[in-house]
Amino acid sequence: MQVIQSRRELQALADGERAQGLRIALVPTMGALHRGHLSLVAEARKRADRVWVSIFVNPTQFNEKSDYEGYPRDLDDDLEQCREAGVDLVFAPTPDQLYPEHAQTWVEVTELAEPLCGATRPGHFRGVTTVVSKLLMCAKPHVAVFGEKDFQQLAVIRKMAADLCMDVEIVGGAIVREDDGLALSSRNVHLGPQARREAASLSRALDAAQHAVAGGERDTDALLGAVRREIEAQPLAEVDYAELRDPETLAASPSRLIGPAVLALAVFFSPDPDASGARVRLIDNRVLPVGRRNR
Amino acid sequence: MQVIQSRRELQALADGERAQGLRIALVPTMGALHRGHLSLVAEARKRADRVWVSIFVNPTQFNEKSDYEGYPRDLDDDLEQCREAGVDLVFAPTPDQLYPEHAQTWVEVTELAEPLCGATRPGHFRGVTTVVSKLLMCAKPHVAVFGEKDFQQLAVIRKMAADLCMDVEIVGGAIVREDDGLALSSRNVHLGPQARREAASLSRALDAAQHAVAGGERDTDALLGAVRREIEAQPLAEVDYAELRDPETLAASPSRLIGPAVLALAVFFSPDPDASGARVRLIDNRVLPVGRRNR
Repeated sequence: MQVIQSRRELQALADGERAQGLRIALVPTMGALHRGHLSLVAEARKRADRVWVSIFVNPTQFNEKSDYEGYPRDLDDDLEQCREAGVDLVFAPTPDQLYPEHAQTWVEVTELAEPLCGATRPGHFRGVTTVVSKLLMCAKPHVAVFGEKDFQQLAVIRKMAADLCMDVEIVGGAIVREDDGLALSSRNVHLGPQARREAASLSRALDAAQHAVAGGERDTDALLGAVRREIEAQPLAEVDYAELRDPETLAASPSRLIGPAVLALAVFFSPDPDASGARVRLIDNRVLPVGRRNR
Repeated sequence: MQVIQSRRELQALADGERAQGLRIALVPTMGALHRGHLSLVAEARKRADRVWVSIFVNPTQFNEKSDYEGYPRDLDDDLEQCREAGVDLVFAPTPDQLYPEHAQTWVEVTELAEPLCGATRPGHFRGVTTVVSKLLMCAKPHVAVFGEKDFQQLAVIRKMAADLCMDVEIVGGAIVREDDGLALSSRNVHLGPQARREAASLSRALDAAQHAVAGGERDTDALLGAVRREIEAQPLAEVDYAELRDPETLAASPSRLIGPAVLALAVFFSPDPDASGARVRLIDNRVLPVGRRNR
């Protein structure tokens, strides 16, 4: 497995692979790899001859400095996991490789990046689309794979790639969960034992909503009310948002669902009662397969 | 000479050329080609095996609708000029090829795009950097050539390419002038006979400033005062800006020049006294080679 730090070197390698007619898949990550990332690597493997993983904790997408500084980092462990997963190449650039001196260029998606996490985390998606653009310019992949846990991120990146005529296929990989339903996230390690138990309420709420919709419930207030009650019953939890939106446009769903909707959640968890530290913000989502009325 | 409208087709052609190890140079234009553009084609020919020209009047970089609608267009003549100049391929996309439905992604350079034309034409450079990004994604060139007449545009595009890790060399082509010094521009056709004569005052002012600097003048107020007097002596001319700035950072020059500076001009010309129509805005510039004090 090659480990590359230089963007120029990576671009030369990409040109070489492409000239041989080999397909490259890129899995962009911020490291702290877990089984969720490895499932994206497996998804990438299905679609390409070469699977490349990038590991870069991107400063411009954090809207709180403490979140950036506290973000878990363990490059040796990440590289070991990549090796075991059969990754061909890891791109682990230093910040100056992606942000040259006086960097002042931004790639920004507007409407899709406004609601949900865009409203709570100003500038977050601008940082994401900017760094993903750079990573795509460096690795020149045919395919790039992103996790569906970050549902809005995936929608924003798809739109960016289409709008900017990027010659890359953007693929989503299914959410991977713990036994109790908690979606895997690098931030889960920051949860205290009590918060960790309470965090399973997100997927329970999603399951319940899916069940309710399968049983015929279409009222968005009723659905979202039940979701909030499930989560707010947890002493450490505070709902950041719980919303139903169109899975493609992210437009707010009508008061009665008439088509598929994504139920998107973001929840803050306070430190355990005997602990200190920052709150942990978790996200999760489920696309609710609501058929249109007259089908 | 191939003429291509589809971005997908162009991307496939680009992949084919690159796989054969051939170098592609792109000359992005808005059509209405003149000898200035053809000099960029010649510059491109020196640096690549394939010379591709794009012709697209980009709606998002016009800040006045009348300017967009009145922008000169003559595709047949443009294609004929490209053929004669030995261009290998012309990319002439329809707007939907570069701006998909509900396009909402912008590429934006901040500081460098703020002064000069950025101050007078809000949103102009955002439109330029966005469309140039798309054109680069479509044509995948090794080199892209832009005219130095649009000095700030060239600086902004260079910064964009570097910041976004684009694997492309950005090259500037020297300004081409009429016999009386007027810099070639597609907009010159809109000048009435009197305005056309008066428009030569821009290059006269640049010549005079260069001469003064060669003679030891370092005072920016004195230099800019002389420039303004030369241009404002023309009845139809109104100076939009006349500034001395650092050629790389575009920071305002100090009151006494101690290093190279670009003298950048933008001037509005009113219609001739007996004519109607919109004002025509012309730009021009010259880098003044001021040595540092102790060299």
